[in-house]
Amino acid sequence: MAVTVKGEKTREHILKASRKIFIKQGFHNTSVSEIISATGVKKGNLYYHFASKEDLGLAVLEDAKEEFFHFLNTSLSGRDSIARIINSCQAIFNEQKKNNFVGGCLFGNTALEMTDSNPEFASVIQEVFDRWTKELETLLLEASESQQLNSRISPKLLAKTVVATVEGAIMMSRVSKREKDLPDFLTAIKTLLDH
Amino acid sequence: MAVTVKGEKTREHILKASRKIFIKQGFHNTSVSEIISATGVKKGNLYYHFASKEDLGLAVLEDAKEEFFHFLNTSLSGRDSIARIINSCQAIFNEQKKNNFVGGCLFGNTALEMTDSNPEFASVIQEVFDRWTKELETLLLEASESQQLNSRISPKLLAKTVVATVEGAIMMSRVSKREKDLPDFLTAIKTLLDH
Repeated sequence: MAVTVKGEKTREHILKASRKIFIKQGFHNTSVSEIISATGVKKGNLYYHFASKEDLGLAVLEDAKEEFFHFLNTSLSGRDSIARIINSCQAIFNEQKKNNFVGGCLFGNTALEMTDSNPEFASVIQEVFDRWTKELETLLLEASESQQLNSRISPKLLAKTVVATVEGAIMMSRVSKREKDLPDFLTAIKTLLDH
Repeated sequence: MAVTVKGEKTREHILKASRKIFIKQGFHNTSVSEIISATGVKKGNLYYHFASKEDLGLAVLEDAKEEFFHFLNTSLSGRDSIARIINSCQAIFNEQKKNNFVGGCLFGNTALEMTDSNPEFASVIQEVFDRWTKELETLLLEASESQQLNSRISPKLLAKTVVATVEGAIMMSRVSKREKDLPDFLTAIKTLLDH
């Protein structure tokens, strides 16, 4: 039992430490020896938990996915559906600012680095984009039914566009490192949501 | 003279062939031997033209930048400013479809792979995003002055948002490989431009 708990903790530690390296420098550009030195875990122990670097990469994505949806659901708070969406975008942008616009979004990074070459990675990223879009769509449907939203485009398409704009905004602010870029993008999202 | 022309052609060939590999698999994930085998150029000849892989990567970006702005200016055609912007987004999306949503945007890919670690790469990407935004902003200012555009957000911010949405849309359609995603995003961009 004690061993299991310790094993769980080690696995968790490897996942979080590896995520930091993958966000910072990408998957291909990270060697197993760098992971070993960053985690302080012995090689045998690493391979006990993860069969390969691909296996670890996939587990890191799955773990980050769970954490993201927990974060999203917490940040989707506010007095009405539209405010909840705007607050969640704001919370995502705040995270970028907190990290000084370094690293960006693990899902976006991995989307561009891995989706053409690795269907398993692509499928987790697809799940993140789809579920995120779906959650926003549900809120936009509510807003639309309560006459709060009066957009010429469908809630589904609007939801997809918000996600694309957030991802594009993270990309562009990561390049510019300009603090005022993200509030600007938030204003644009508010306009898109007719807010 | 003949040597210079031949040298120019070789340089050009290396640039175009390397761009294809970098788009497909990223910069870090591409070895010099892969570049040599893809270009069919001898190692000595490659290093005659480019001092290092970084030097080649930077030249590939500069070359792609020139080509992109040529492409953009050709595609920015239409009966008025707003139609010109929409047609340019359509043309960019058509290129993605032509490539079966594989590869995506070299600038977006490099933005996420290299900007945190390589300031020279970041500076070329920044130039692409800034100049692209500026060209759209000029058109939006014209549209605004001629009362064709009636947006609550400034031409500058609107221009930046169109660029972010295009980049996010390329990212998402690259993951989904769904043909209908890009027309959807184009509809959203039209709405944003009040069209």
